[in-house]
Amino acid sequence: MTRDALELDRRLELIAVPGIPLIEPGDDLMTMIVEALRALGEPLESDKAVVVVTSKVLSRAQGRFVDVSTVQPSAHAHELAAITGKDPRVVELIVSEAESVSRAARGVLVVRHKLGFVSANAGIDESNARPKQAAEGSGPWFLLMPLDPDGAARELRARIREQLGVSVGVVITDSHGRPFRIGTVGAAIGVAGVPAVWDQRGRSDLHGRKLEITMTAFADQLAAAADLVAGQASEGRPVVLVRGLSFVPDENASARALVRPAEQDLYA
Amino acid sequence: MTRDALELDRRLELIAVPGIPLIEPGDDLMTMIVEALRALGEPLESDKAVVVVTSKVLSRAQGRFVDVSTVQPSAHAHELAAITGKDPRVVELIVSEAESVSRAARGVLVVRHKLGFVSANAGIDESNARPKQAAEGSGPWFLLMPLDPDGAARELRARIREQLGVSVGVVITDSHGRPFRIGTVGAAIGVAGVPAVWDQRGRSDLHGRKLEITMTAFADQLAAAADLVAGQASEGRPVVLVRGLSFVPDENASARALVRPAEQDLYA
Repeated sequence: MTRDALELDRRLELIAVPGIPLIEPGDDLMTMIVEALRALGEPLESDKAVVVVTSKVLSRAQGRFVDVSTVQPSAHAHELAAITGKDPRVVELIVSEAESVSRAARGVLVVRHKLGFVSANAGIDESNARPKQAAEGSGPWFLLMPLDPDGAARELRARIREQLGVSVGVVITDSHGRPFRIGTVGAAIGVAGVPAVWDQRGRSDLHGRKLEITMTAFADQLAAAADLVAGQASEGRPVVLVRGLSFVPDENASARALVRPAEQDLYA
Repeated sequence: MTRDALELDRRLELIAVPGIPLIEPGDDLMTMIVEALRALGEPLESDKAVVVVTSKVLSRAQGRFVDVSTVQPSAHAHELAAITGKDPRVVELIVSEAESVSRAARGVLVVRHKLGFVSANAGIDESNARPKQAAEGSGPWFLLMPLDPDGAARELRARIREQLGVSVGVVITDSHGRPFRIGTVGAAIGVAGVPAVWDQRGRSDLHGRKLEITMTAFADQLAAAADLVAGQASEGRPVVLVRGLSFVPDENASARALVRPAEQDLYA
């Protein structure tokens, strides 16, 4: 990304997009978002707007629900369940979504998800997870992370361009806990159009010295900002429009660019 | 913080506040910020606005410059310098600001700062660090983190209330790298008025189930959002006004609430 700091925009707006209902498996989420943006009636400028969508609604639309009572825990899941004190069936779900285990301790299971990011419980979420058509007495139901969030972001970007005639960035977000710090923050797990990382390497500061901090986690900061208006308790605000943020479009953007490979990570 | 998700604001605005010059030691930063906010002329509502300030300008105003050529490295600094490949005098500065070393490797020195947060190089920054009155041939100059950023945040909140008649939140920010992920994000190292962590424990989701994700790093998300408009390369935009974010004021807020104690941290 070659955007110069001097071109940074002076005013950014974040708008929680109304009109997205509770999403059920099979719902045409992309059309719902396009229509909600159209109904919002806010002017959109190409390469100056980003649509931020929580992964939870994407997971729901994809039908990523699992009835935990149907899960058979492996020996590995039983071991980790003994360490963590978690339900072995839930642990089985977590490890089946994971590439590797980062930390296991009482009440804590941090894994590297197959999508690359490291988070507690592979992002698997019980709260709000029951699908409408769940049979009486079934469950408890859990919701897995969406499949191919980068692809979903690209699809939404293409649909918005097609239907509304503007090129926007798209970021799919999840809430992650972190080492060292208390509380969750929004993080980008899918990206399209907008750079995931803003690379300032080679640029100089006001004194002509090479910049030391040169890689900004641009899409993660968008995810964190959007979380301020999206909230977490309700699923009624899963889409946030960010306006007034110029960026150089990146057709090859991927949230994978935000993932430090395990072998380069001192905390893996 | 007891704010309900249903009361979340629909529209958030972030404005880079113009008119803050390059800050030099002894400058009355607080007055400069108050006057820049006054000149901005944007209406401010109590408990609905947050002023976000980068730690760098606070450090500069506090005169936290060190001429590295005057630093005598200890034996411990020499050891860490050999591991990291860094200048032993810079390492001495880093460890003198640190409570403990988290990781040392080639090119990397991550420490727990005395202020509590964990970051690379104790947040000590070379770029842009030269003070105006530096003698010819002195340096290189480095800039340490500010003293008592919570106190500075409280002071700015008090000054804004006194001079402009509104109660705003204040967040002092730094840019932090992170385990697992590429790129830096804004993080809160000083907080006043606005809750550092938004605690939703005890609240229920749409299905009446207790929420699993219950602690949001509210001030960190504000810091990340502000960084989108503040940028990093220039020191010309160190103050960002966030409008339209209701919060229950917290007179005892502290950025320490965002720090996970080392003994509870699986990655310490």
